[in-house]
Amino acid sequence: MQNKLKNKIIIQKYGGSSVANVECVENVARRIIFYIKKGCKVIVVLSAMGDTTDELVVLAKKINPNPSEREMDMLVSTGEQISCSLLAMALHKKKVEAISLTGSQVGIITDTYHSQAKILKIEADRIKKELTKGKVVIVTGFQGVSTDFEITTLGRGGSDLSAVALAVAIKAAMCEIYTDVEGIYTADPRIVLDAKKINYITFDEMLELASRGAKIMHTRAVEVAKKFNIPLHVRSSFSKKEGTLIMEKTPVIEEAVVRGVALTDNEVKITLCNVLDKPGIAAHVFNDLACENINVDMIVQNVSHKNATDISFTVPKKDLAKTIKISKKISKDIGSGEVSFDENIAKVSIVGVGMRSHSGVAAKCFSVLAKNKINIDMISTSEISISCVIKKDLGKKALRILHKIFGLHKI
Amino acid sequence: MQNKLKNKIIIQKYGGSSVANVECVENVARRIIFYIKKGCKVIVVLSAMGDTTDELVVLAKKINPNPSEREMDMLVSTGEQISCSLLAMALHKKKVEAISLTGSQVGIITDTYHSQAKILKIEADRIKKELTKGKVVIVTGFQGVSTDFEITTLGRGGSDLSAVALAVAIKAAMCEIYTDVEGIYTADPRIVLDAKKINYITFDEMLELASRGAKIMHTRAVEVAKKFNIPLHVRSSFSKKEGTLIMEKTPVIEEAVVRGVALTDNEVKITLCNVLDKPGIAAHVFNDLACENINVDMIVQNVSHKNATDISFTVPKKDLAKTIKISKKISKDIGSGEVSFDENIAKVSIVGVGMRSHSGVAAKCFSVLAKNKINIDMISTSEISISCVIKKDLGKKALRILHKIFGLHKI
Repeated sequence: MQNKLKNKIIIQKYGGSSVANVECVENVARRIIFYIKKGCKVIVVLSAMGDTTDELVVLAKKINPNPSEREMDMLVSTGEQISCSLLAMALHKKKVEAISLTGSQVGIITDTYHSQAKILKIEADRIKKELTKGKVVIVTGFQGVSTDFEITTLGRGGSDLSAVALAVAIKAAMCEIYTDVEGIYTADPRIVLDAKKINYITFDEMLELASRGAKIMHTRAVEVAKKFNIPLHVRSSFSKKEGTLIMEKTPVIEEAVVRGVALTDNEVKITLCNVLDKPGIAAHVFNDLACENINVDMIVQNVSHKNATDISFTVPKKDLAKTIKISKKISKDIGSGEVSFDENIAKVSIVGVGMRSHSGVAAKCFSVLAKNKINIDMISTSEISISCVIKKDLGKKALRILHKIFGLHKI
Repeated sequence: MQNKLKNKIIIQKYGGSSVANVECVENVARRIIFYIKKGCKVIVVLSAMGDTTDELVVLAKKINPNPSEREMDMLVSTGEQISCSLLAMALHKKKVEAISLTGSQVGIITDTYHSQAKILKIEADRIKKELTKGKVVIVTGFQGVSTDFEITTLGRGGSDLSAVALAVAIKAAMCEIYTDVEGIYTADPRIVLDAKKINYITFDEMLELASRGAKIMHTRAVEVAKKFNIPLHVRSSFSKKEGTLIMEKTPVIEEAVVRGVALTDNEVKITLCNVLDKPGIAAHVFNDLACENINVDMIVQNVSHKNATDISFTVPKKDLAKTIKISKKISKDIGSGEVSFDENIAKVSIVGVGMRSHSGVAAKCFSVLAKNKINIDMISTSEISISCVIKKDLGKKALRILHKIFGLHKI
């Protein structure tokens, strides 16, 4: 182990729960020192301490229920600056050279979209200079500086993205994502009690799981890691155990058919009734929704009767009001029927690269649900996943059934 | 009033107590809007909310009792970033265009001395651009960016200094310093109950009062204001009353002999006994202290007996241990006697430009103290001030007596 890491650059990202208080910050310092002693050069990416960001948001909303995104970025970016400077102090106390740097000082250059900026490039000179001096470099996660010299934040999962982007820019040997759980699980362990930690998972599987409700890693960070083939190691900051390696190809010879299952009840189903079944109508509907940045997930169009059909689709719950408004306008424009919605739905998904080479997975999934009297409302599939929309109150039951039928409790 | 302010640029600095909570921030927003409606362009300089800075310092010391100044600057500079973004949101809510800017974004360029940086220059382009757009510009006080692109803080009284330096750079018509009291008083109103608010005071008098214990304005900001002749208006953010104007020459024809009195018990007296009375010894002593950044205030050397003398001087209490150590070393080097110290002292001062043209002020001061059985231990005078070191427990009594004898309760 020691030789393998000698002189290697590793990125370690610690989430808010890993630096929630003074003791946690000291724990993180000890973990960094463990790697320093192995001869690594370490770049640390930190989130804000515990609930700091949420508290700042609450404070802002007291002053202005609808604050400008530019000023929100000014406000919440202070959270990481605090955690980073404190970690530098903790390392100094243990006689380890360290320096904290803001996104601006690092040179994490983003576009100008406040609260959801995209990283354009990272000017890594400053980091390289500090690493050469033998310092641990501590970078504020979740933030950058725009081409207009404004402080920007990267949106949800932003610190993971900072870590991965730095790993790309600095050609790091490893990127570790520290969190408060031991890795990626075959299912949410709070729902499926015999869920197992997964040792290896591919980027594609992780992307499918993340977009289907698994909350450990945000899709944006995984997408960048996949693009540049940076292996990610998701693990706990409170344990020395190995976590889950997310990579291009796992070292397992025969891939698992199903790697994991996920559940979300964060979507709502909209139905446009009695829509004229002619080319271009569906495009019209989904184009208007896309223009409002509404992310449509599943779409089902029924068989046409008398040249008319029903179109159903799901959108995130937060976009319900906006979606209804747009849909009603479209319905009026095209002379179709009423617009209804159903919040009482859940989406259960199974994910695994092995599905590519195994037939019968979908059939097994649908039949076990049917056998358990769980009615499937909508279905969508990709090469490596199957998702079913069902009634909300059957979601957890369905998740447990699918977890068992595909043998995930035995891996 | 309206015409006088139309299109003028004014700087308003609000201290921590003026932005201590959501209500205070909203109050500040209302006050700014009052000036906006008069047609002013307003630049606001803010301190951190209430005790934020102190709380961050406590947090840091839990992690490292001796934190690096560079990381402390990273940490505490977040306080102003928070208050500034919140004020921008409060103004937006009231439909007033506003933007918050960090010291780095403004271009407040400092030297590299963390925690006590000096402002080298202000690149005011960004501020001018935002003012031209019709925005209220909100600047983080107390901080800048060093020539090494590091976040620096300006030390005690730093936000006042930021405001004055901006007033110089932007050629502001007025610089208002908002605080939680109504202005500069003839004496600390908590000690002298009939102390009166002063309407006008000269820069020189303010400097003397500040360095002798009056805590409203820090000397550094007043020095810069004096150098560039920027009138300062010290006033309360909780009242519409006019405060105190600090200026080069007051508009009063006959200057008050004594403008105010001040008291401090923040110093300690050191005595080097039995020092050989030959040239160069005193220089040796005070040179060594200066090398350690110890600020010696008053110095008294007794009449020499048998070619030996006692040298007494006062230093800030916080430097006592260091001063004793250095003094003992010097005493050993030059073969003099013991080093003693007295913490049980207070310094009472009277200040006024009128002293220049009025004789007998010192005599009146000394005789009223003598009549009240207050023994004077050390005396120092300048052209416009007289300070006396007395026993600590007589400090408040002396302050009240001097306030009365010079008629300050009747102005």
